[in-house]
Amino acid sequence: MKLKNNIRFLVVALLLITVSCKAQSKSSKKLKQQEHPSLILTKKGVQDIRAQLGTVPLFDATLAKVKEEVDLEISAGIEVPIPKDFSGGYTHERHKRNFLMLQKAGVLYQILNDEKYALYVKEMLFAYEKMYPTLPVHPQERSYARGKLFWQCLNDSNWLVYVSQAYDCVYDYLSEAERKKLETNLFRPFADYISLENPQFFNRVHNHSTWGNVAVGMIALVMNDDKLLERALYGLKTDNIKPGQKDNDGGLIRKEGQKVGFLANLDEPFSPDGYYTEGPYYQRYAMYPFLVFAEALQNVKPEMKILEYKNGVLLKSINTLLNLTDADGEFFPLNDAQKGMSYHSRELISSVDIGYYFGGNQTELLSIAKEQGEVLLDDTGLAVAIGLRDGLETPFIKKSVEYTDGPNGDQGGVGIIRADGSDKEISLVMKYSAQGLSHGHYDKLSFSYYEGGNEVIQDYGMARFVNIQQKGGGNYLKENTTWAKQTIAHNTIVQNETSHFGGDFEIGNINHSEKYLFDVSNPNVQVVSAKESNAYPGTELHRTMAVIKDENFENPYLLDIVKIKASSENQYDLPYYYLGQFMSASFDYKVPTNLKPLGTKNGYQHLWEEGEGKSNNENAALSWFNNERFYTLTSVVGENDELIFARTGAKDPDFNLRRDPAFIIRKQHSKDAYFVSVLESHGHYDPVAEIATNAFSAVKKIAILYSDENYVAVSVENVNGSTSLFMFSLNDALKNKEHQIKIEDKAYNWIGAYNYININ
Amino acid sequence: MKLKNNIRFLVVALLLITVSCKAQSKSSKKLKQQEHPSLILTKKGVQDIRAQLGTVPLFDATLAKVKEEVDLEISAGIEVPIPKDFSGGYTHERHKRNFLMLQKAGVLYQILNDEKYALYVKEMLFAYEKMYPTLPVHPQERSYARGKLFWQCLNDSNWLVYVSQAYDCVYDYLSEAERKKLETNLFRPFADYISLENPQFFNRVHNHSTWGNVAVGMIALVMNDDKLLERALYGLKTDNIKPGQKDNDGGLIRKEGQKVGFLANLDEPFSPDGYYTEGPYYQRYAMYPFLVFAEALQNVKPEMKILEYKNGVLLKSINTLLNLTDADGEFFPLNDAQKGMSYHSRELISSVDIGYYFGGNQTELLSIAKEQGEVLLDDTGLAVAIGLRDGLETPFIKKSVEYTDGPNGDQGGVGIIRADGSDKEISLVMKYSAQGLSHGHYDKLSFSYYEGGNEVIQDYGMARFVNIQQKGGGNYLKENTTWAKQTIAHNTIVQNETSHFGGDFEIGNINHSEKYLFDVSNPNVQVVSAKESNAYPGTELHRTMAVIKDENFENPYLLDIVKIKASSENQYDLPYYYLGQFMSASFDYKVPTNLKPLGTKNGYQHLWEEGEGKSNNENAALSWFNNERFYTLTSVVGENDELIFARTGAKDPDFNLRRDPAFIIRKQHSKDAYFVSVLESHGHYDPVAEIATNAFSAVKKIAILYSDENYVAVSVENVNGSTSLFMFSLNDALKNKEHQIKIEDKAYNWIGAYNYININ
Repeated sequence: MKLKNNIRFLVVALLLITVSCKAQSKSSKKLKQQEHPSLILTKKGVQDIRAQLGTVPLFDATLAKVKEEVDLEISAGIEVPIPKDFSGGYTHERHKRNFLMLQKAGVLYQILNDEKYALYVKEMLFAYEKMYPTLPVHPQERSYARGKLFWQCLNDSNWLVYVSQAYDCVYDYLSEAERKKLETNLFRPFADYISLENPQFFNRVHNHSTWGNVAVGMIALVMNDDKLLERALYGLKTDNIKPGQKDNDGGLIRKEGQKVGFLANLDEPFSPDGYYTEGPYYQRYAMYPFLVFAEALQNVKPEMKILEYKNGVLLKSINTLLNLTDADGEFFPLNDAQKGMSYHSRELISSVDIGYYFGGNQTELLSIAKEQGEVLLDDTGLAVAIGLRDGLETPFIKKSVEYTDGPNGDQGGVGIIRADGSDKEISLVMKYSAQGLSHGHYDKLSFSYYEGGNEVIQDYGMARFVNIQQKGGGNYLKENTTWAKQTIAHNTIVQNETSHFGGDFEIGNINHSEKYLFDVSNPNVQVVSAKESNAYPGTELHRTMAVIKDENFENPYLLDIVKIKASSENQYDLPYYYLGQFMSASFDYKVPTNLKPLGTKNGYQHLWEEGEGKSNNENAALSWFNNERFYTLTSVVGENDELIFARTGAKDPDFNLRRDPAFIIRKQHSKDAYFVSVLESHGHYDPVAEIATNAFSAVKKIAILYSDENYVAVSVENVNGSTSLFMFSLNDALKNKEHQIKIEDKAYNWIGAYNYININ
Repeated sequence: MKLKNNIRFLVVALLLITVSCKAQSKSSKKLKQQEHPSLILTKKGVQDIRAQLGTVPLFDATLAKVKEEVDLEISAGIEVPIPKDFSGGYTHERHKRNFLMLQKAGVLYQILNDEKYALYVKEMLFAYEKMYPTLPVHPQERSYARGKLFWQCLNDSNWLVYVSQAYDCVYDYLSEAERKKLETNLFRPFADYISLENPQFFNRVHNHSTWGNVAVGMIALVMNDDKLLERALYGLKTDNIKPGQKDNDGGLIRKEGQKVGFLANLDEPFSPDGYYTEGPYYQRYAMYPFLVFAEALQNVKPEMKILEYKNGVLLKSINTLLNLTDADGEFFPLNDAQKGMSYHSRELISSVDIGYYFGGNQTELLSIAKEQGEVLLDDTGLAVAIGLRDGLETPFIKKSVEYTDGPNGDQGGVGIIRADGSDKEISLVMKYSAQGLSHGHYDKLSFSYYEGGNEVIQDYGMARFVNIQQKGGGNYLKENTTWAKQTIAHNTIVQNETSHFGGDFEIGNINHSEKYLFDVSNPNVQVVSAKESNAYPGTELHRTMAVIKDENFENPYLLDIVKIKASSENQYDLPYYYLGQFMSASFDYKVPTNLKPLGTKNGYQHLWEEGEGKSNNENAALSWFNNERFYTLTSVVGENDELIFARTGAKDPDFNLRRDPAFIIRKQHSKDAYFVSVLESHGHYDPVAEIATNAFSAVKKIAILYSDENYVAVSVENVNGSTSLFMFSLNDALKNKEHQIKIEDKAYNWIGAYNYININ
């Protein structure tokens, strides 16, 4: 409220100052109809910004940086080449750079009121206007929806989302004739091409379509064209999409009867918690169009109350996305995701600024903005920069949290548990969500595990080097399908060496796991548990993971319990993709003279079998070393369980895969089965002092002390002599329910789903 | 000079202050004979320190840290267990911690004048005095010279070097009877055990013996025993060492007729440039005893002028060692070396402080000390901390430099070339030294290459996890011999799949490469060149490496020319251990279905063959990606050259090796041959913006345009159309010599060994 008053005061102050402003004077006659700029920058916003220039450090710094960048581009001259290349190639990167520059130059024109920027935008727009009408479809043929400037309509849509903003900024600078020429020859055919002419791209629920819808919607808002806006919001009324039609990544175009358009893309992929079903990497990608269009709608059509749509899911999703990161701010790579992407990306800068401005000035967002070190050059960025200047930021504390998946929040979810370790935060990410549309992986009940920003048990992520041309044009590599999406590439159960749902997208897409429990009320025993009964018909998987702080351990440890109930005998594999250097194993194993792939299909063909062993003492422990720390995974195993050391990289003719290790526990000819493990982080190695501390596991033995249809109890014996017992109710997670089991004639009673006690 | 005056003033000031000091009053009667402390701390130094307490931030901070550490140990109580374990094990680490604590407690007693520290030292010394006389030889049998407290005499010597200092500090606190008891039951037998009873350990030129000599020398100085000191300085006059006798790592104990003792260990392994023949990792290890004993000798026997010995080689060696580091201060891992060791180690803290104090207060050492963030608690550390407090530090700039090897500097050397890259420093390390004693690797003319602190072409280092007990007790692993020392583990020529000198230590140990040229006078073309004619009898290897700054390239590039002249046909392999993700290759290759080892012995058994190709266009280019940068190696190859992709990890039953990639160029059935390559660092990838810049090599083609007995000329054609030519005289490197070659009837004239010109 205080900020708003300040701004109001400044606006009044500004009105007293005479500003020579061509953009303003030219536009005066159209004021009634629609002001420009009005989408992201607004006339009032621009006045506020101009009044504050020189007094808001982060805004000023961003402005200076953008100015330097654009000035350099202007002096280099305009280049609008005939489209030819894939991403990573010259024409692709040039057109991408152009739309980014156009948007920035438009903003600079408004803020600095310097015509050279308007002229630059104008000249480049007319270079496109000249080329576009005669452009054929892009020569690269890989996409299911080829663009004209780029190899896919997706990138063409990116272009229009940014360029609409530039057009809005110079709208009043252009003559009516100029605008007409641009709209007739460039913007309208451009919007029609990515919508009418590519319904298979435009009429979907998918991040691609979000971009398409928003592109059309943004230019509709600038051109004040309500019919085009309707197309953006609700999609095309008719199209020629065939049932079962797929895109070039194998993703289904559309379920029958599915709603389309921008609002449908808000309705369906976002859960009520603001979790985007494709996962955080694509949520990040979609956030920019979602939020920038929402901001534009809020400015131009405030009566739509778009930010209140679906209980304000858009603003909620910003916090959700920020929580889906490790200690370094990097997104958990759920589904298709390139590692390293983080909340330092430009999409998250917009998100944080828009979230702060429209979402009630949450001061913890300012600390993220501070880390980002950059703001949007609009009202929202100004507000953030003022907040930071005035020292209002508070820490953004990530907590243990569950995010439901599905439009109504009833299609499983993602559980994140965080606990303070001796020097770094431990984070567990367990996935029991829906498929995640075409970017989904077959990884029901999988997990990943972090210590600070370091991966301990990794999710492989995707097999793609985004925008690196040498690697398949920077696009998805075939190994994304043959490896990265397959179940064996994840830290979860594989039955009979086949992926979940037989690796069939349609089946996967109509199924989801069921949350059983997410209880983090006790900071010392945080539990997440979920069931999956559709991945393998006839087999029920129930995984329970607890992050336990126990004074007998140096750090919180992970207890992992997978219960399998099946109608027939199967082979079960449970891989753990640990990262680091093998230190020791508690069991005998052999390494082969030559390496062979572990299997022939479903991802197994990409794993070399580096060793195999068995244990005859009921436990198998593997220790490794990474980032100056030691880790030990101790598992309950039977004499017949095969303990396999594997590594990615087999059948990899283009060296597209990393060479990462895995430890796989295999149970053959099993019907019902349990996989129970404890994962510890312990000790430290200082390579300068060459001193190793606490290099050995604290686990002496773990055992399943009790199991029946309804309960399981696992004991964890520490080398210091203490023993703890974790008891769990498998079919009733009610908070107040009383339970009892008897172990060796001793009765144990508890209330609620689980009980963790020290018995020794 | 100013500093000294200050100190003198403070000393006078101190004399006016009455200090209650039991240590001082007790010792007064012995002052004439020998003051205590007198080795590292001196009576006068202690007075200076006490006078400055509270005014020198870094000294005060170090003191507070040490005090906290020792106080914690004192409250935990004294533990002197019966020796049992290897390094990494409990008893080993406990005794190690004890000697470090004893030394620190002694210092604290002197500086803080608090009896509790003297008492702690006294009690622990008597615990050792009680145990030592009945101790058998250490139960672990691996060492050629087993200790009593530790598994090897080396660690026993470490103990005595530190504990002598503690004894010196509490000498006057103890009664004469107590001293006699300690000397009779502990110190003298201890010194005798590591010398008289282990001549094979004591009477060598080796870092082991340096520790042994210094241990005996230090305790001799405290006990004022000139005969024992003589033993330390000159070794045992007689011993029972047999010719050809070896240690447990396969190192020769002693060459016949070789001098021994501390002075011989200074004479022989150090070159006049201060390069220690075992390499920087072991130089670091030896620096502490070398310098601490030198400091003690300087204090107790200044007439010896030990710091002027051999032209002041000890002080010189400090700068040499600091220059043998990458941009992060980590030592280049020449010979046996664990990566990650750096000038932040405690040995280098002593070195820098002692070097500053005794070496004329070089202010650039202060900037290293600042990074170290810690000083010695003695006169030298005080001087450094005062220098830093007074803001005297200047940057420590590492330059291109050559260090000769051998006692007289005539046994080859190590050439380091550094050049500024677009954002990071490029460093080339070429090794053409002597064998490096028992820690030497068979890697004549090998190299490693860095960009900032990142390895681009790595030296594997050693196969050992120092002090990590799970890994062979923290000792050398068998793969150190079968892999890490072998020639194929390095970036140099392997003939007929055998290592240099047939992997025979005795032969290697009497040979060295010959420097041909080290010329860094032109910052744009820095050249190092050396020859090796003994590694493979009948074959002469001549490698020339130039780091070239050329405006047609984004970064300085490396030109690598290996000329081979042989008397018979051979197979030659040249591996490049690049680090990172394969991006692309310019040639066709196939990957096998199953992986087989590349060979059966000499290290080849540890390499998996991951792929093999051939090129029919005269060049082979391999691009990879690491740490957000791209790299390309382009090589001149013939149609029959085999291009092999390999990876470490074969025949590795204990998973002791890392899984690192290599690219090997193989020429079969060749007599004379050339290996010519260009290595570029180029471009950048930003995982947050997902933008790749300059991802492709700038090299269009490289070719040998001319070669005869005396000259070689290599052309490097850039994709931008420019071509440069590097001409080199192979047999005459004289500065002023004129040369001429004709290429396609065009004459090229130049003066000096090389010429680099743009011809297009």
